[in-house]
Amino acid sequence: MTRLLTATDVARIVAAKGLRATFDELAAVIEADLRRWPQFEKTARLASHSSVGVIELMPVADASRYGFKYVNGHPGNPALGLPTVMAFGALADVATGLPLLVADLTLATALRTAATSALAARVLARPDARSMALVGNGAQSEFQALAFHLLLGIDEVRLYDPDALATARLRRHLDAVAPALRHLRCASAQEALAGADIVTTLTADKHRATIVAPSMLEPGMHFNAVGGDCPGKTEFDPAVLRTARVFVEYEAQTRIEGESQQMPSGYPVTELWQVLTHTTCGRQHRDEITLFDSVGFALEDFSALAWLAWAAADAGVGHELDLIPTLDDPKNLFGLLEAAGAAAGPLLPRHQERK
Amino acid sequence: MTRLLTATDVARIVAAKGLRATFDELAAVIEADLRRWPQFEKTARLASHSSVGVIELMPVADASRYGFKYVNGHPGNPALGLPTVMAFGALADVATGLPLLVADLTLATALRTAATSALAARVLARPDARSMALVGNGAQSEFQALAFHLLLGIDEVRLYDPDALATARLRRHLDAVAPALRHLRCASAQEALAGADIVTTLTADKHRATIVAPSMLEPGMHFNAVGGDCPGKTEFDPAVLRTARVFVEYEAQTRIEGESQQMPSGYPVTELWQVLTHTTCGRQHRDEITLFDSVGFALEDFSALAWLAWAAADAGVGHELDLIPTLDDPKNLFGLLEAAGAAAGPLLPRHQERK
Repeated sequence: MTRLLTATDVARIVAAKGLRATFDELAAVIEADLRRWPQFEKTARLASHSSVGVIELMPVADASRYGFKYVNGHPGNPALGLPTVMAFGALADVATGLPLLVADLTLATALRTAATSALAARVLARPDARSMALVGNGAQSEFQALAFHLLLGIDEVRLYDPDALATARLRRHLDAVAPALRHLRCASAQEALAGADIVTTLTADKHRATIVAPSMLEPGMHFNAVGGDCPGKTEFDPAVLRTARVFVEYEAQTRIEGESQQMPSGYPVTELWQVLTHTTCGRQHRDEITLFDSVGFALEDFSALAWLAWAAADAGVGHELDLIPTLDDPKNLFGLLEAAGAAAGPLLPRHQERK
Repeated sequence: MTRLLTATDVARIVAAKGLRATFDELAAVIEADLRRWPQFEKTARLASHSSVGVIELMPVADASRYGFKYVNGHPGNPALGLPTVMAFGALADVATGLPLLVADLTLATALRTAATSALAARVLARPDARSMALVGNGAQSEFQALAFHLLLGIDEVRLYDPDALATARLRRHLDAVAPALRHLRCASAQEALAGADIVTTLTADKHRATIVAPSMLEPGMHFNAVGGDCPGKTEFDPAVLRTARVFVEYEAQTRIEGESQQMPSGYPVTELWQVLTHTTCGRQHRDEITLFDSVGFALEDFSALAWLAWAAADAGVGHELDLIPTLDDPKNLFGLLEAAGAAAGPLLPRHQERK
């Protein structure tokens, strides 16, 4: 039997735990998996592009578990009443191929992205960072603000989105769940960045934009570049990348999809797992400008699936179902039809048979 | 909402229709999709190999639908009480990325493989073919025997499997559902092949085997080579391939996975869709030896998913569920947590908050 978690199930698991425990646990699982990076079989995701969006499959495996995520990106979806990003995935047993869990990953994608951003900022931002600019106040913005508040101690977020309603919704949510987190609405990205220690960019347009220009840089800033995650979709002036030390999840994928797609192939980038394992250093001095060119890697979803499997079993949430057949005799697949046919009538009525 | 079909649901759909209607409809959908081959975005499947098996993702898309299958191949599974091959997949809307259907594809994989085999034999085997050898009597053997009986008029199957119990199970099933189909058990593959018009090989061992040697060839035979579908897993002596005209589903994939992996890259193969669209000819004369080097291509699963979506809606079978979130405001993903949190307690209890 395979456990199925709907979006409602996942929301129940997270709500029952609370956001602090959720982010703490999820960040711990992601960090532990990133630290054993060489144990994973990795591949850049497989994308199918259309004129209005992209659909991707993101598989990854270690010696015992195989995970994959299905995820789309359709910036025009909200106008149709659908989320821009929707995702689900599965975790399977490498030894048998049995799918153990199928789960909504829409909420988990927002949670794991924010947890990974905060993990990276822990080793890349100045330790005394307290103020964060958040440019792009869409569906993932609450998760970023709260992950940085809870995991890093950010106590002020400087918000900008051309859609004032989006910013208003974000502020209402922050008031409701995190009254100690100050927030203010800025009139432009530039105003949001002024004085911020950390800058998170989280815009959804599928084209080359310049949210961050060199004139906005301040010494010691850490950039958490989340929105640029597709070929042709970027948020930074390439001059910013030349000024910053650039960190990525998985170089082979980020060079295609991230801000780094704007840079020549020899441009140096450092994979985050190397910093987490102390193979290389993170921030080197107070004034260094660091940039986490985050595109979202399959391993983060693998961690989220493993965490969901554990949390769902622990909380007794979800539905056990025969997504694949349960057979008394594993070589007797046809028996499934016999059993169903006994109720429905003969599988091959006499008049249907060949003479 | 996404429709979910469990293995039991799929079996109910097939049993209610009966096998003739199932094979007729499925073959028609697969043929129609193969005939519009250039409309699909195709890619070789993405495989993850371990020492005991393989797990694969198989995506394909046209301008309106995106489909993928998850499938494993673990020859040691039956000893653990699990099927060798298990599969599930999803069909999504290209315009929005919304997953419309998630379904067991274990049964559908057996059905679509058999339907595709029969489709190929219609244009490649001699029109008066009546006898088929079936070497390998495992989980998929009933489906192959019945598809050839129902779609092609095969009235005799010559069976061989080193596991006599597997052959006995197959014969029992054929007696139960297709009494007009004669069957006999042979003592070897060679005996099964003797006098057969069509030869279907369907063995599961993950290594290079020689089920079919040049000495067994007879003029005009059609080979339906189904078992060799992985790098390192073949069933034919390469000399047989040199003697036969070889047809494949998708050349880029078959050259890696099929019997054709044994041949040099320039060795000529013809894609089946070209025969179905009359771009090239199938069988050229009575004595020609033809070989369908079938490995299973994503498009066949796409067709099966489309057929299942239609058949499930038609029969009112399946479960509508929120595999991805249903949001009043598509930009308000956090609202899911608020709604769940209202029941579970505050998302961020006061004592958890940062000061």
